[in-house]
Amino acid sequence: MTFFNDVEKVQYEGPRSTNPYAFKYYNPEEIVAGKTMAEHLRFSIAYWHTFVGDGSDPFGVGTMQRPWDQYSGMDLAKARVEAAFEFFEKLNVPYFCFHDVDVAPEGETLADTYKNLDEIVLMIKDYMKTSKTKLLWNTANMFTHPRWIHGAATSPNADVYAYAAAKVKKGLEIGKELGAENYVFWGGREGYETLLNTNMKLELDNLARFFHMAVDYAKEIGFDAQFLIEPKPKEPTKHQYDFDVATGIAFLKTHGLDEHFKFNIEANHATLAGHTFEHELHLARIHDMLGSVDANQGDTLLGWDTDEFPTDLYTTTLAMYEILKNDGLGKGGLNFDAKVRRGSFEANDLFHAHIAGMDSFAIGLKVANQLLEDRVLEDVIDNRYKSYQSGIGQKIANNDTNLKELEAYALSLGEIKHSSGQQERIKATLNQYLLRVNEY
Amino acid sequence: MTFFNDVEKVQYEGPRSTNPYAFKYYNPEEIVAGKTMAEHLRFSIAYWHTFVGDGSDPFGVGTMQRPWDQYSGMDLAKARVEAAFEFFEKLNVPYFCFHDVDVAPEGETLADTYKNLDEIVLMIKDYMKTSKTKLLWNTANMFTHPRWIHGAATSPNADVYAYAAAKVKKGLEIGKELGAENYVFWGGREGYETLLNTNMKLELDNLARFFHMAVDYAKEIGFDAQFLIEPKPKEPTKHQYDFDVATGIAFLKTHGLDEHFKFNIEANHATLAGHTFEHELHLARIHDMLGSVDANQGDTLLGWDTDEFPTDLYTTTLAMYEILKNDGLGKGGLNFDAKVRRGSFEANDLFHAHIAGMDSFAIGLKVANQLLEDRVLEDVIDNRYKSYQSGIGQKIANNDTNLKELEAYALSLGEIKHSSGQQERIKATLNQYLLRVNEY
Amino acid sequence: MTFFNDVEKVQYEGPRSTNPYAFKYYNPEEIVAGKTMAEHLRFSIAYWHTFVGDGSDPFGVGTMQRPWDQYSGMDLAKARVEAAFEFFEKLNVPYFCFHDVDVAPEGETLADTYKNLDEIVLMIKDYMKTSKTKLLWNTANMFTHPRWIHGAATSPNADVYAYAAAKVKKGLEIGKELGAENYVFWGGREGYETLLNTNMKLELDNLARFFHMAVDYAKEIGFDAQFLIEPKPKEPTKHQYDFDVATGIAFLKTHGLDEHFKFNIEANHATLAGHTFEHELHLARIHDMLGSVDANQGDTLLGWDTDEFPTDLYTTTLAMYEILKNDGLGKGGLNFDAKVRRGSFEANDLFHAHIAGMDSFAIGLKVANQLLEDRVLEDVIDNRYKSYQSGIGQKIANNDTNLKELEAYALSLGEIKHSSGQQERIKATLNQYLLRVNEY
Amino acid sequence: MTFFNDVEKVQYEGPRSTNPYAFKYYNPEEIVAGKTMAEHLRFSIAYWHTFVGDGSDPFGVGTMQRPWDQYSGMDLAKARVEAAFEFFEKLNVPYFCFHDVDVAPEGETLADTYKNLDEIVLMIKDYMKTSKTKLLWNTANMFTHPRWIHGAATSPNADVYAYAAAKVKKGLEIGKELGAENYVFWGGREGYETLLNTNMKLELDNLARFFHMAVDYAKEIGFDAQFLIEPKPKEPTKHQYDFDVATGIAFLKTHGLDEHFKFNIEANHATLAGHTFEHELHLARIHDMLGSVDANQGDTLLGWDTDEFPTDLYTTTLAMYEILKNDGLGKGGLNFDAKVRRGSFEANDLFHAHIAGMDSFAIGLKVANQLLEDRVLEDVIDNRYKSYQSGIGQKIANNDTNLKELEAYALSLGEIKHSSGQQERIKATLNQYLLRVNEY
Repeated sequence: MTFFNDVEKVQYEGPRSTNPYAFKYYNPEEIVAGKTMAEHLRFSIAYWHTFVGDGSDPFGVGTMQRPWDQYSGMDLAKARVEAAFEFFEKLNVPYFCFHDVDVAPEGETLADTYKNLDEIVLMIKDYMKTSKTKLLWNTANMFTHPRWIHGAATSPNADVYAYAAAKVKKGLEIGKELGAENYVFWGGREGYETLLNTNMKLELDNLARFFHMAVDYAKEIGFDAQFLIEPKPKEPTKHQYDFDVATGIAFLKTHGLDEHFKFNIEANHATLAGHTFEHELHLARIHDMLGSVDANQGDTLLGWDTDEFPTDLYTTTLAMYEILKNDGLGKGGLNFDAKVRRGSFEANDLFHAHIAGMDSFAIGLKVANQLLEDRVLEDVIDNRYKSYQSGIGQKIANNDTNLKELEAYALSLGEIKHSSGQQERIKATLNQYLLRVNEY
Repeated sequence: MTFFNDVEKVQYEGPRSTNPYAFKYYNPEEIVAGKTMAEHLRFSIAYWHTFVGDGSDPFGVGTMQRPWDQYSGMDLAKARVEAAFEFFEKLNVPYFCFHDVDVAPEGETLADTYKNLDEIVLMIKDYMKTSKTKLLWNTANMFTHPRWIHGAATSPNADVYAYAAAKVKKGLEIGKELGAENYVFWGGREGYETLLNTNMKLELDNLARFFHMAVDYAKEIGFDAQFLIEPKPKEPTKHQYDFDVATGIAFLKTHGLDEHFKFNIEANHATLAGHTFEHELHLARIHDMLGSVDANQGDTLLGWDTDEFPTDLYTTTLAMYEILKNDGLGKGGLNFDAKVRRGSFEANDLFHAHIAGMDSFAIGLKVANQLLEDRVLEDVIDNRYKSYQSGIGQKIANNDTNLKELEAYALSLGEIKHSSGQQERIKATLNQYLLRVNEY
Repeated sequence: MTFFNDVEKVQYEGPRSTNPYAFKYYNPEEIVAGKTMAEHLRFSIAYWHTFVGDGSDPFGVGTMQRPWDQYSGMDLAKARVEAAFEFFEKLNVPYFCFHDVDVAPEGETLADTYKNLDEIVLMIKDYMKTSKTKLLWNTANMFTHPRWIHGAATSPNADVYAYAAAKVKKGLEIGKELGAENYVFWGGREGYETLLNTNMKLELDNLARFFHMAVDYAKEIGFDAQFLIEPKPKEPTKHQYDFDVATGIAFLKTHGLDEHFKFNIEANHATLAGHTFEHELHLARIHDMLGSVDANQGDTLLGWDTDEFPTDLYTTTLAMYEILKNDGLGKGGLNFDAKVRRGSFEANDLFHAHIAGMDSFAIGLKVANQLLEDRVLEDVIDNRYKSYQSGIGQKIANNDTNLKELEAYALSLGEIKHSSGQQERIKATLNQYLLRVNEY
Repeated sequence: MTFFNDVEKVQYEGPRSTNPYAFKYYNPEEIVAGKTMAEHLRFSIAYWHTFVGDGSDPFGVGTMQRPWDQYSGMDLAKARVEAAFEFFEKLNVPYFCFHDVDVAPEGETLADTYKNLDEIVLMIKDYMKTSKTKLLWNTANMFTHPRWIHGAATSPNADVYAYAAAKVKKGLEIGKELGAENYVFWGGREGYETLLNTNMKLELDNLARFFHMAVDYAKEIGFDAQFLIEPKPKEPTKHQYDFDVATGIAFLKTHGLDEHFKFNIEANHATLAGHTFEHELHLARIHDMLGSVDANQGDTLLGWDTDEFPTDLYTTTLAMYEILKNDGLGKGGLNFDAKVRRGSFEANDLFHAHIAGMDSFAIGLKVANQLLEDRVLEDVIDNRYKSYQSGIGQKIANNDTNLKELEAYALSLGEIKHSSGQQERIKATLNQYLLRVNEY
C-alpha cells in the first residue's frame, strides 16, 4: 500500500521553484568540490521522530496524524517499515537510523522482544535488498522503559546493567545483520538526578566496562562499525555523563577507550552545553574524533532539547565547513534527529521539514565550499599565526625552546605589535558569501 | 601605620554573638573530626579583590573607599602590603594569594616590571617572617594589559607567547622565594572570541607546550608547588579553553600533563559552566585531581562571574563534604576569590564579607562532618549499589564478565525490582542536619 | 478501602524526631505572630501531580507505582477521590486544587465530559461534608488534549475558543458548587511557537475578552472566588503570554481587568523567567495583586519546569517574608504544584515529599517572622531611605517639586555622601536567623 | 584636521564589490516600497561606543587605538567632535546619539559640568549647521560615576535624585538646543542588587515622579521630542526595573505615563530578557509604543550584554519586518548601540563594523519588503485566523457573545478540525526569500 499519497517524489527543481515538495538546493547529482552532493551529504532519516514520534510533550498528548495510526502492535511495526521505505524512496535519502524499540515493540519478556525484533529486522533486510537506502546506525533505547529509571549501564542495579548489556549485544548483532556503518551510544539516563544518592565513580567505571565489552563483542562477531558516543549535557537527567565532546574525550582517555570511539555530535545538544554546534564539531575534528552528526537545531532562548529541523544557514554553513575540513564524515552521516513541531501534525509536514533540512545543508555545503575555495578564513588564519612559522615562534611550535630562552627573548622585545582580529569584517564577508549561493 | 582602625581583631564569639565583627562559627582552635578548624579550612585572602579591586564594572568606575587610596605607584604597592598583613592578622587567616600585577605595578619595560616585583617581593618576604600568614599560591596576570588582547600562551603572536613565558618564569621564581604551596594557571584570555579567525589546534598545542615548559622549569629550580589549572567556561572570551573540570582532564590527558596538574575549582565558574560547585569538586576528587578551591558564589540567574562572598550554606556544606571525602585539600586551600559588592564600598565591608564567608564554610564543615559521622549519605549509597557486591554485579565490578554472559543472565531475569531514589527525603534530612549545626 | 497502609497519620514530633513520617517543624496548632501555623500556611495538595502524575518525561514512560493503578476510567477517577481524601486526612492539609481532567476523564463528547464531571463532583462534594479539607481552587485543563494544539482562548480556531469557554463556564460552576476560594487561569498553550504564523494582537484581545466573559459569568452565578492568573514565561510554548508578573500587570491593565485578577505565583515559573521567587511575590504584593502561591522549586541550572518539592530554606524564608508583609494570602494558599522525582516512584515518597515541603515552609515562616519581629530588614531599609522623610526628599515623595527646584538644590550640593548597601553583612545575618530556628 | 585617513568615503558599490570600505547593500538613494533606503533606515552612530569606548572589559584595560588618543580633557572632547562629524560624513549617516558625559567631561562641580557641556554643545551645534547628520536622541549618563552607586532616580539618597533631576533637565535643554527628535531614558542603575535592602515600591514611585517631572519640563520649554524608555533586564544591577517591554508597559500604565513614552528597543537587551528581538518590537508595535531601536546583537550563549554589531540577517529581516508593519519608526531610528570587539582595535574596524551593520539592515529591509509585497506571512496569518471573520468567531471578535452562548455552540460541535502551523515550511520559505536578495 501507499502511505504518502500527496507526494509523488521530491526532486531538485532549483532555487526559483515554488513547488513546496521540491528541493531548491539539494541536487544529489550536482558536483561540489569533486564529489556529488549525495556523497558529501550522507543524509539519514531518524526513524523515531519521523515514524514513531506522536507530538506529545510534557503538557500534552500526541497530535500527529499519521497514515499508519490505524494499526497497532506488530502490525503497526510492519506498517511503519513499509511507510519508512516509501518515505526514503520519495525523499531519495541514502540512510536511516533507528533504536531497537522504534522498529519493534517490546514483548512481555526479553526473549519475546528479541522475537519481535528478529521478525522486523528480517523484513527491513528484505526491503533493503531493493532499496537504495542503507543503515547509517542503529542503537538500543535504554531510557524509555521504567526499568531504566536510574540509568542503564550506570544503574545502581546490576540486573538492569545486565539487561542493558543484552540489549546492546542484540543491537550489535542487528547492526551487523543490516550492514550498519556505525553504532551509537546515547546515554539517555546515564547521569544522575542528584549527587546526594550517587556513586559517580562506580557508575563511570561501570559505563567504561560496558563500552569495553561492546567493543570486544563487536570484534568477536566481526562487526566493524564505527562506535560513536553522543554527548548531551542534561535532560532527561540533571547531569548527563557525556556532557559535551570535551567531557567525552576525558572519559574515553581515562578508560582507554579513545581508540575505539568517535563522536556523534548533535547541534541542539551542543547549544544546551553552552557551545556552538561548530565548536563541538571543530573540537572533535582536531582530535580526529568527528564521527557523525545529528542534524537538527535548538532554540537558544529555551532550555530544553527542541530538536527542530535545521534551517539556520549560518549553522549549516559552519557545520559543513568543519565537515569539509575533516574531509567528510567517513562512515558517518547527517542524521535528521529532528522532529516536526507539535503543531505541524500533518504527514505533509514531514516532507516540508526534511526538504527544509536537506536544502539548508546543501546551501551550507555550497557556501562552505566556496569559502574554502577562496581560502577566505584560511588566509585570515594563516596570516594571523604566521609568527609561528619562523624565529622564536617556530622554536615554540617545534618544542625547541624553554622558559629561559623565551624570557631572554621577551626582555629584548620593544613594544609588541598586534593586528586586529577583524571579527566584524569576517562576519560581513560570511554574509556576502551566503547571499551569493545562487551563483555557486 | 594602621589602615583598619575600626576593627581590633576578629575573634570567635559563638552563634549568639551580635558583634558584627566576630566570628559566630569559625573557631580556629575548635576540633572537628580530629583536626582543628584551622587545619580543615585553609582560608586565603585574594589580594586582587581585597586590596586592589576598586568596584568598577562595565557600566561604572570604581566606588571602593580604601585607606590606601591616597598613595600611588610603588608607594601604593607598599601601602597595600602593609594593609594586607594588618588585614591577615586581624582576620587571623593562614594564607593569601596574588597575581604579579596585584602586588607591584608594571614598569615601562619587562625589566622594570621585574625590578618593581623584586622590591615588593622582598618586602612581602620580610613581612612573612613575622606573620603567621603564608602564600597559598601566586600566579601571573596575563589578561589585563592590552598585550594579552588575543591571549597569552594561546596568542597568535609568538612575541606575546614569549612575554607570557617570561612572566610565568618570574612567577615560579617568586613562588619559590615566598614558599608558595601551589602555582595557579587561570587562562584569562586563553580561548577565542570567534572560531572564524582561530587556529584552535595550534593554540591548544602551544598551551600544552607552555605548561610543559613551566613544569620543567619548576623542577629545574626546585620549586615543588602543586600546579593548578582553574577552569572557567567563558568570560572574558566567548569560549575559554579550560571550560570545566572535564575539559581540563581531556586537555591534560591529551598532552601528557595529567600527572603534573590538579584543579583549582571556583564555585562561580562551575555554575557558569552549567554545573553545581559540588559536581566539579566531586569530578576532580574521583580523578584524584582536586587541588584547591576558589571560594565564592555566583548568581545562577545572572550570566556573568559575580564573585560573591560565599554565604549559601547548602553550597558550603556540600563543598566541605567533598573536601572531607578527599581527606582535605592537601597543599590547597579555600581562597576567597570574592569581591564585596560595588555598593559595599566601605572598608568595614571587607571584614563583614570575609567573616560571612569564613563562618559559612565553618558551618559547612560542621554539617558535612556530622553527615559523614552519621553516614547519612554513605548508607544511602552503599545500600543503593549493593547489587555490585555479589553475584553478577560483582562480576561486572571485577571486569569479569562479557555481553554473552550478561545476556544469558538477563534472559533469566523476571521483573526487575527497583528502589526509590528518595531525593525528597534526603533533601529534608540535609535541612535537618543544617538546622542543628548549633548543637554540633 | 485504604490506599496508604504504611502511614497512619503524619503528626508534629519536633526538630529532633527521626521518624521519617513526622513533621519536624510544621505544627498546625503552634502560634506564630498571633495566628496558628495552620492559619498562616494554607497548604494545598495538587491533585494532578499527586494523584494523576505518572512520572513520565519526554524521554520515558511513567514510573510511579500507585495503589489505584489497578483501576481505569470512572473507577479510577473514583478511586483517586477516595485516595485523595485519605491522603488529605493523613497529612492534615486544609486545601486541595484540581483541573477538571484530573478528577474526571473526558468523554467522547463535551456532554459526556460534563456527565463524568458531574458524577465526580458530586462524590467530592459528599467527601467534603466530612472532611476538613476544602477546595483552594479549581481550573480547566486546556493544554493536554490535541484540540488545544494551537492554544485555547488564543487559538486561531474559533471553535476551540468556544470549547474553552464551555470548559471555563463549567469550571466556574464546579468552583461554586464546591466552594472554591479562587479560580486559576494558567494559559498552558496561550502563547506562540513562532511569531511567523501568529496574530499576537488578536490572540491577546481574544484572551482579554475571554477573561471578561469569565468575570461576568462568575458574577452572574454568584461565584465570588478570587480570580488568579498564573505567570509562566515559556514551556510548553516558546513564548507564553503570561510571561511573568509584570507582563501580567501590563496585560490586565491594558484590558481593564486589573480589578478582577490577582496572581498565582509559582516559584519555578519565576526562575524560568529570570527572577527570584521572592521578586515575583514582592512585585505582586506592592501592586496589591499577590493572590496565591504554587509552592515548588526549580533547578536554576536546568532550563525547564522541574516542579520539585520546595526544600530550599532561603526561598521558603523569603517567600514567607513577603507573605507576612502582605498580611497573608487572603483567600489564597500554598499549593504544592510539585511532583516527586521520577525516581521517587513509591507511594511513601508522596509523604516524604509533602512533609519536606510543609516543614520547609514552616521553617520559613518562623525565620521570616523572627526577622520581622526584630525588624532586621525593616530597620536596614528605613535607615537607608530616610532622606525621603524630610527636606528635599520629602518634597520628592510628596510630588511637591520639579526639575527646576531639584536642579537648584543639586547645584548647591557639595560632595554627596553614600552609605554601604551591606549586602554581605545582611546575608550573614539571614544565615544566623535561619540557624536559630530551633530556638524560635 | 583629518582623523580617518585610510577611508575616503564609504559608498554603495553593489553586492559583488570586494572593496572592504564599500556598502554592498545599503544604497541611500535606492527606492524600496516607495521610499528611499535612507528614509527607511534612519541609521545613527552611538557616540559612546564609537568615539569614547576604549575596549576595556571586566578583565582588561582598553585596547582601542584611536586617532584622538593624544588629547585629553576638553581638547579630547573637541577632537572627538571633529572626528565624529568626519566619521558621519564618510559613512553618510543621518543621525547620531550621545550621553552627556560622552561629549563633555564632568567637572569638579555640577556647574563646571554644565560649563563644559555648554561649550561642546555649542561646537556640535555649529558643526550641525553644515552637516547632514542630525541628533536622533541624547540622554544623561546616570550610571558611570560613583554617585550613582545605588541608582539615580531610584537612589535611596534624595541628594542623588536631585542631582539626576538636574542632569535630565540639562539634557532636555540640550536636546531642544540641538533639535533632538527623541529623548531616551536607560536606567543603568535603576534596579536593585538585592531585595533585602530595597524599598522597591518607593523606588518605582520615585522613578515615576521623575518621569512626570521630565514630561512637564519638556512641555514647559517646548521640547517636543518623543520620550523613550529602554528596557534591559539585568546588568549592571541584578534586576533592572525596565526588564522588558511588557514590564515597561506595566510601569507606564500603573503610573499614568503611557501616553508620554514609547520604547527604545535593543536587540541584545531583548535576548538577555529571554525574548527574541522581533518579539519585543512586535509587542511594542501592537501597543503602538514602538519608538526607536538600538541596533546591535548579542550572543545567546553568553549571559551579558555583548553589544555586537548586527550581522545576523534573520534578525535584521524580522526587525525590518516589524518596522515596516509599523509604517516606520516615526521620529525613531536605528542607532548602532554596538561596539567593535575588544580585539578589533584599529580605527578601520569602526568602518568595517558600521558597514556590516548598515548592509545587514539594508538586506533585512529588502527581504522584509519582498515578504510583505508577496504577502508571504500575511496570507498565512489571514488564512489561519479566518474563523474569526464570520459566525461565532466574528461574535467573539466583536465582543458580542458570552460563556453561555459559547457553551451552547461548543456542545453542538463535532470533532474540531485543525490546520498545521507549518513552521518548517515557513522557515524554509524565509530562507528562500533571504537568498534571493540580490534579485530584489
